[in-house]
Amino acid sequence: MSVYTTVTPEALVAWLSRYSLGALIDLKGIAAGVTNTNYFVTTEQGRYVLTLFEVLQLDELPYYLDLMKHLAEHGVAVAAPIADQEGQLASLLCDKPACLVACLAGRDLTTPNASHCAQVATTMAKMHVSGQTFTGHMSNPRGLDWWQQTAERVYPFMPADEVALLQRELALQQQQSFADLPRGVVHADLFRDNVLFDGDHISGFIDFYYACDDAWLYDLAIAVNDWCSLPDGDIDAERARAMLAAYQTVRPLQAAEVAAWPLMLRAAAIRFWTSRLLDFHCPQAGELTFAKDPGHFQRILQQHCHRQDFWLN
Amino acid sequence: MSVYTTVTPEALVAWLSRYSLGALIDLKGIAAGVTNTNYFVTTEQGRYVLTLFEVLQLDELPYYLDLMKHLAEHGVAVAAPIADQEGQLASLLCDKPACLVACLAGRDLTTPNASHCAQVATTMAKMHVSGQTFTGHMSNPRGLDWWQQTAERVYPFMPADEVALLQRELALQQQQSFADLPRGVVHADLFRDNVLFDGDHISGFIDFYYACDDAWLYDLAIAVNDWCSLPDGDIDAERARAMLAAYQTVRPLQAAEVAAWPLMLRAAAIRFWTSRLLDFHCPQAGELTFAKDPGHFQRILQQHCHRQDFWLN
Repeated sequence: MSVYTTVTPEALVAWLSRYSLGALIDLKGIAAGVTNTNYFVTTEQGRYVLTLFEVLQLDELPYYLDLMKHLAEHGVAVAAPIADQEGQLASLLCDKPACLVACLAGRDLTTPNASHCAQVATTMAKMHVSGQTFTGHMSNPRGLDWWQQTAERVYPFMPADEVALLQRELALQQQQSFADLPRGVVHADLFRDNVLFDGDHISGFIDFYYACDDAWLYDLAIAVNDWCSLPDGDIDAERARAMLAAYQTVRPLQAAEVAAWPLMLRAAAIRFWTSRLLDFHCPQAGELTFAKDPGHFQRILQQHCHRQDFWLN
Repeated sequence: MSVYTTVTPEALVAWLSRYSLGALIDLKGIAAGVTNTNYFVTTEQGRYVLTLFEVLQLDELPYYLDLMKHLAEHGVAVAAPIADQEGQLASLLCDKPACLVACLAGRDLTTPNASHCAQVATTMAKMHVSGQTFTGHMSNPRGLDWWQQTAERVYPFMPADEVALLQRELALQQQQSFADLPRGVVHADLFRDNVLFDGDHISGFIDFYYACDDAWLYDLAIAVNDWCSLPDGDIDAERARAMLAAYQTVRPLQAAEVAAWPLMLRAAAIRFWTSRLLDFHCPQAGELTFAKDPGHFQRILQQHCHRQDFWLN
């Protein structure tokens, strides 16, 4: 489980005095999450999620927390960060940058249906549109350059056919330019475990700590690859159609996005294939979570390649 | 049949005195061909095809005839133009620009198999490579601008759903740029009736009068759309794979070409859908040939769209 930093009730009570949330009632570690330490915190005022950042520094947090605040204020269903009495959204706790966000109702889904997928896509499109007035900026630290550097690190551990696949796909992406596509704030990690549903109704997006500026279509491709993929890496057409149609009720795709869509699906698969390969072959010291299967994204990528081949191979 | 200009034996004998081909033995009109007038001409020296150009002017011919000469000299299987005693490849006959080219053995095929398709593709790749040292240049007069202008002329004759399809596809192509793809001389009209086979062996390409500078991949897409298409507009995978593999034995496709391939197939379909729509709805005065079915290319385009849709519609 992902509690890297132990927070005692005593330490938390002292830190909570910054806020106007009343007395602490309960503190409970959360198993989910790969990068940060998370707790459920219940006070007299309500229930919150406490996040201690294990990698991000305090001065890196405003982009993410201001973004979540901006989106929440604009009616997008996201976990809103809580300001302390001085208006700060984050401060140190146990020597780690820490923040509290509102605890959204419900839980994440493992087997979403087309209706769930449509709600995710609609909320994503609203997030993209509302993000246009957000003044913060963050370039994508996990873009093509990162995939390439990461690939070089993991090639020695991979069988030759997988190396050949990844090299070919990276060369293809290198030749592409998504620079002309409409862009703005993207979540960049909108997997099933980062969306909560209260029953069958979406309650909101969480975990914005990969958010950045990139092509909006990239966000959609990441989501389709997760929300609509089958165990063999194929895409469930009904769910994919539901997502794409729902997204476009809010923001219709431009012709250039339609044209870029096939290769964007592959780009989004490469993003997570490479990061999972890195986590799998080069785990960081002290890593407590189980590395996720890189093969899942390899299969998703291969299915996209096969589907998009058009008699070339 | 496509004999717009009648050439009498008397007129031909006088014109043939420019050449060193011996006495005229036979003169016979050729039914094939849409744009020009063609005859088989047999002299004591051999058999030739006489072409009288109904649209092109004399000063427009050097590009095409010099190109055919260049390719023939470089060992590409094409009909070689014949020079007269002054070294000219064309001159006026019956007030029309006229030329003689060597008569290739064999005939065109209506039901090509994978081996035939492979030979066409290999010869095309050789033509592309050999064309790199040809110094003539010709921009494509039937590119995107022409498709758009032509579409505007034929929209009034088309049902609403077909107008919507063509508009959407033109908007998509407008957003694309094929400018970065490798380019050079392309035939741009390499249909089954422009390739002759002697038995099962290719004897050469004919009818270079749409040749121009464009992306090489465009030539390949035009050929796949014709050589591999089925009556319902679908593509025969075996023939398409044979063509693409054979082409790449001579010139492997670059990553950017692989990425552009799906939309290039659609571009190539639009090229002939629009021109056939024009021929069908706005026939030129004095047109003697039957207009070809525009619906065939509409179906090819729709099959490409369907295949490349990836859950977007």
